[in-house]
Amino acid sequence: MTESQRTLYDLAAANPDVRFSPPCWAIKLALKHKGLDFDTIPWRFTDTNVLDVSGQSRVPVLVDGGHEVHDSWQIALYLDKTYPDKPLMKSYTLRSAARFTKAWVDNTMQPAILPLILEDIYDCIHEKDRDYFRESREKRFGKPLDQVFTDKKGQAIILEGILKPLEETLSEIDFLGGAAPNYSDYVVFGRLQWARVVSREPFAPTDTDGPIAAWFSRILDLYDGFAAKSPIIRNQ
Amino acid sequence: MTESQRTLYDLAAANPDVRFSPPCWAIKLALKHKGLDFDTIPWRFTDTNVLDVSGQSRVPVLVDGGHEVHDSWQIALYLDKTYPDKPLMKSYTLRSAARFTKAWVDNTMQPAILPLILEDIYDCIHEKDRDYFRESREKRFGKPLDQVFTDKKGQAIILEGILKPLEETLSEIDFLGGAAPNYSDYVVFGRLQWARVVSREPFAPTDTDGPIAAWFSRILDLYDGFAAKSPIIRNQ
Repeated sequence: MTESQRTLYDLAAANPDVRFSPPCWAIKLALKHKGLDFDTIPWRFTDTNVLDVSGQSRVPVLVDGGHEVHDSWQIALYLDKTYPDKPLMKSYTLRSAARFTKAWVDNTMQPAILPLILEDIYDCIHEKDRDYFRESREKRFGKPLDQVFTDKKGQAIILEGILKPLEETLSEIDFLGGAAPNYSDYVVFGRLQWARVVSREPFAPTDTDGPIAAWFSRILDLYDGFAAKSPIIRNQ
Repeated sequence: MTESQRTLYDLAAANPDVRFSPPCWAIKLALKHKGLDFDTIPWRFTDTNVLDVSGQSRVPVLVDGGHEVHDSWQIALYLDKTYPDKPLMKSYTLRSAARFTKAWVDNTMQPAILPLILEDIYDCIHEKDRDYFRESREKRFGKPLDQVFTDKKGQAIILEGILKPLEETLSEIDFLGGAAPNYSDYVVFGRLQWARVVSREPFAPTDTDGPIAAWFSRILDLYDGFAAKSPIIRNQ
């Protein structure tokens, strides 16, 4: 197997084949969307020195030939600029729409999903990452990890409400991008795939019948089932 | 003044010049966007017989020549089909993006704003509408109107969180439509204008400095200050 000219640093669980970073998923599907091949390097939270080249300590980092780009939004813009075929965001107007979708995913979906999977994330990450993860999250929430979120049933109901806009849209339209997926789809998919990959139990939005699960399954099947083939914790 | 060939039934307060319906605002700006002239007819919640022609009892209803369309989304699609110049949604992809924005406005913004203005709406509507309004809302919420929402300070903080995606997007981009407004902008504007028009106190999202208020003000100024000129309760 020859090495690709493109390398993506991709957050991995203890099992290096289990990949759960939402922005890494968005970028992997963005690369697939454009038909660009790439290798991924499994990366862990504490491998900060590995990314020194990018001057920061978070994935995704894409190394494309000699060029390095970090931050998923910057990578998406870079890909559309460098490889204008099969655009992720065809116009400035569509880029604005995707920017809003991303802001919704980061500010509204993310905090609604995290309570449901915080402990599952802790359980699946590499041993060397656990102290970092526990300390940083306990500092953020001001309490022990297992006491941060206790009402998971209530949270599942809150999440259902939060996802209503997605459900309503996808009950009428195949993809957020319309007839075909675009970057908005990949950003939303990445955040749901995060939960699906790490969850020990089925994750309702992607595993219960409905317009969201049907759309999610269409994305899983894209590009020869690229995302569908990726291992998830509860099948291990 | 000659009568326009287009008439829009538009929800009015006791003062017939005070117009506060979110979807009516979206459609008025959509008509302005296309440069189409129109007259509005002030309509009240209990004027259901007036709309009998449309076979339903809610505004907006647009009568365009002999043709009648109701439901704001259907009117927007009708306008783009009938008057393709200056599209509100230039492509199926952009229509999908606007559909998601509308679903977010209806399912997420609306319930977060309503608690802050429910009593203000009651106070400003026509006397003949009050029994209908009180009964229908008390039935919906299962308690007396003034007891439905009591923690307005807490709700204002919740709303700030709900609006984060909008704030983040508009801190980078002039309009949801990119360099110029499109239907997404008008839908979001309509829902904020609803609160601004009926509020006895300044409404923080539109009246406090920040990217959302700056964008809101840009929309107010569009089309020769069309929305800016419309009377609001606290200036009465």
